[in-house]
Amino acid sequence: MKDAMVIPTYQDMLDAHERIKPHIRRTPIRTSDYLNDLTGAQLFFKCENFQEPGAFKVRGASNAVFGLSDELAAKGVATHSSGNHASCLSYAAMLRGIPCNVVMPRTAPQAKKDTVRRYGGVITECEPSTSSREETFARVQAATGGDFVHPYNDPRVIAGQGTCAREVMEQTDGLDMMVAPIGGGGMISGTCLTLATLAPEVKVIAAEPEQADDAYRSFMAGHIIADDAPKTIADGLLVPLKDLTWHFVKNHVSEIYTASDAEIVDAMKLIWKHLRIVMEPSSAVPLATILKNPEAFAGKRVGIIVTGGNVDLDKLPWI
Amino acid sequence: MKDAMVIPTYQDMLDAHERIKPHIRRTPIRTSDYLNDLTGAQLFFKCENFQEPGAFKVRGASNAVFGLSDELAAKGVATHSSGNHASCLSYAAMLRGIPCNVVMPRTAPQAKKDTVRRYGGVITECEPSTSSREETFARVQAATGGDFVHPYNDPRVIAGQGTCAREVMEQTDGLDMMVAPIGGGGMISGTCLTLATLAPEVKVIAAEPEQADDAYRSFMAGHIIADDAPKTIADGLLVPLKDLTWHFVKNHVSEIYTASDAEIVDAMKLIWKHLRIVMEPSSAVPLATILKNPEAFAGKRVGIIVTGGNVDLDKLPWI
Repeated sequence: MKDAMVIPTYQDMLDAHERIKPHIRRTPIRTSDYLNDLTGAQLFFKCENFQEPGAFKVRGASNAVFGLSDELAAKGVATHSSGNHASCLSYAAMLRGIPCNVVMPRTAPQAKKDTVRRYGGVITECEPSTSSREETFARVQAATGGDFVHPYNDPRVIAGQGTCAREVMEQTDGLDMMVAPIGGGGMISGTCLTLATLAPEVKVIAAEPEQADDAYRSFMAGHIIADDAPKTIADGLLVPLKDLTWHFVKNHVSEIYTASDAEIVDAMKLIWKHLRIVMEPSSAVPLATILKNPEAFAGKRVGIIVTGGNVDLDKLPWI
Repeated sequence: MKDAMVIPTYQDMLDAHERIKPHIRRTPIRTSDYLNDLTGAQLFFKCENFQEPGAFKVRGASNAVFGLSDELAAKGVATHSSGNHASCLSYAAMLRGIPCNVVMPRTAPQAKKDTVRRYGGVITECEPSTSSREETFARVQAATGGDFVHPYNDPRVIAGQGTCAREVMEQTDGLDMMVAPIGGGGMISGTCLTLATLAPEVKVIAAEPEQADDAYRSFMAGHIIADDAPKTIADGLLVPLKDLTWHFVKNHVSEIYTASDAEIVDAMKLIWKHLRIVMEPSSAVPLATILKNPEAFAGKRVGIIVTGGNVDLDKLPWI
């Protein structure tokens, strides 16, 4: 998988859905008359923040974990992540009863480490640098033999994330577009994978923080541009595209819109207030871009993926 | 209605449900493995905070508004309330296109006044005293002829609130008990009304703030005890029982448990973190009492009404 790029197929997504259904939630769609009036669009928010571990990433992680043969599964899984992928992979491994090793920077928030450990994940800390992370991860993987599940550049993960768009299409009566945040591009790629076959008339739109707009610049340039350490309130969206996600972005995404951190925080507060759900700054980027580009969305039926709900309730960005 | 007490029937609740279905949401049930592990119970949270105006009170208000004859409806509705009933009645009146007059203390939070006005409600301010409120309300009602919809001591309102317990029974596979917060007793009375016929094996339990425990003391004493101005973080639960709600509490409630303000805030934060929903302090009282009395709930299937989600996001009680 690491040498030749394996592009997941629509059938992979269908298989993933059958495989993971017993282990994930079919999350509801939330709507708000207030937000519809405000945007002039009809917005359908898919609440992936309601997954038990709080993020859509449980879909791809479960697909990877439950797709392993018993022999491979016995050695467990391994990844490097300081975010939702680490806790979702630990959660899926716990459900299957196999080990999960996670390399995390020692500077990662204590709450994220606690969540991984609550789900039985074993953390090996590294320094907060790429070289330390890669060296540490190689050592952990050599010692455990665990199957590497990349946070997004993995066909099993992308096929798993694609199940979300399939549910949205089942839960709504037709859409004009679907908007999701873009970081590494796992959710956007899964959405493209699914809609290209299931509903090619539905445009896929990516929403990105201005302060980490490497996907936007890649999209404009026609090749991957990766930033060194971008900083934005949308801390789930800091990572760059990789070859597999770039394949989907390049071929199927219609637009990438960006929004400033202040606009993201405003949109987040609007969602908390009017949809009454707890979600992360990263998940507010779609609404922020819709409010910023009303002409592109007015009169349209728009699916929005609320990607996650893990946020520090003691440090809300508007307080 | 004001002289002879009219007790709503099960059929009134069924009729209410048919009447209001087009105007309310069938809100989802949320569950959390984490909270189930923590309590040793199976908890089913009915998300009435997801009603468009943010509270279950839209059920009773809609039943009153849409049950009026065209002749009566033309004069509109009127009430006194500084909380969710005012906005929910305004919302229902807006849907029917009739006037709604609300008497509110001039000291009520600006956000609550704004919400009532957004839904077209006309506010007449009074001084924050019972005498001023009654005098002002009498004047407003005489001038407009609007039908008085009491926040809870009204059979139409109680029949409307009872539709929530009916949905919970349809959405779960049997329960041992249902817990709701108690203030004036409208939701608890509706729950009793419904379950007494639909599922008499399900115990109805009321949850009340220690600092406004007049229902608990009434329950123990066998007659209504009303406090003068109790103070608690659970600001939706300050009002006393009235004859109609006392009828249901006295005859059908199994237990009333209480929790301190600190326990309520802890429970609220747990719900925000693990169910990832935005709800009010009042709606956290059930979980607070469950955590305080684990032996009463362990091993049980427990429905919990999350009554509302209107909270000031700039002033969260744990910050």
